[in-house]
Amino acid sequence: MLGLQLPTDPRWAELIRQDLPELLTDHAWCELKAASNVMSMIVRYPDLSELIVELTRIGQEELDHFGQVVAKIHARGWVLGPERKDNYVNELMQFVRKDGGREERLVDRLLFSAMIEARSCERFKMLTEQVDDAELRDFYRDLMVSEAGHYTTFIGFARTYGGRVDVDARWKQFLTYEAEVIARYGTAPTIHG
Amino acid sequence: MLGLQLPTDPRWAELIRQDLPELLTDHAWCELKAASNVMSMIVRYPDLSELIVELTRIGQEELDHFGQVVAKIHARGWVLGPERKDNYVNELMQFVRKDGGREERLVDRLLFSAMIEARSCERFKMLTEQVDDAELRDFYRDLMVSEAGHYTTFIGFARTYGGRVDVDARWKQFLTYEAEVIARYGTAPTIHG
Repeated sequence: MLGLQLPTDPRWAELIRQDLPELLTDHAWCELKAASNVMSMIVRYPDLSELIVELTRIGQEELDHFGQVVAKIHARGWVLGPERKDNYVNELMQFVRKDGGREERLVDRLLFSAMIEARSCERFKMLTEQVDDAELRDFYRDLMVSEAGHYTTFIGFARTYGGRVDVDARWKQFLTYEAEVIARYGTAPTIHG
Repeated sequence: MLGLQLPTDPRWAELIRQDLPELLTDHAWCELKAASNVMSMIVRYPDLSELIVELTRIGQEELDHFGQVVAKIHARGWVLGPERKDNYVNELMQFVRKDGGREERLVDRLLFSAMIEARSCERFKMLTEQVDDAELRDFYRDLMVSEAGHYTTFIGFARTYGGRVDVDARWKQFLTYEAEVIARYGTAPTIHG
């Protein structure tokens, strides 16, 4: 699925079923962080006009998703808990080159973003199959489609702006690194847990 | 206007007329920073359900405004320049209490946000009267209405969540401090310059 080399451990779905409040809380923060991520890319690359228009649109979608997840939490009589750390995303970020040329750094940032969308998409697909809540199953189906679209957009921009960078080769390295990372997860009832 | 104690120096409008690209560039960044500001409030007060729903809506509007300003820049054949510093906002932030109880800090953060909306609203009003571009005059009229709405929302939440804090007294202090700050501005072709 979207090139991922390792499927999520099936036991993750069991953890989720046992703690929907934690899943939704963590998920809300994932969406807010996704909006922050595209906003910080806008700050880095304002001169790439086509890119920032699309990043703005994605940021609006992520903020809209945040609002939708929060509404699901409130509708169930719950309150949004404090922000959760996302160790998986932090580990992926370590793979993003901080040195190198502008093109290398931009490609890495876009592939980092595509990677999160791809894994989130796979996790959302599991949720559409495993969650004991018909409304949430439908919700995650919609979000899965949206995440897949963002994935395609990020990969596409990496190819557009990659210049001399071999984007396909770098994406393979990302996929290999991600598989090593995700092998240590599947142990917590969070989106990337 | 919205309680402001000092009107903007009329010479500011002249500076703006001479540098629309700088105005629009700075304005775009103001909108992105406004979206970041409400997102950081969401991170601080996730348990205040009514507040975060409204902050999410405002954040979406700010991001939408960012996209609209960027579209105006691109439509004129320009490119968004690098992020601008906003010294005025940074000076206002110094008035926000970092110590004190949770209610004091929340009220200050809301009044800080209301203050920026109020001054931006006054500046936008000047732009609707002074800019030599009919499309931009209409644009700033729409934004002026939106900023006034955000101002009302922030002040309203300060009253709702202020508890024992005398919000009216604190707002008067903000207005006095802001008048001292803005007296040193009006010297650059930026939204709060």
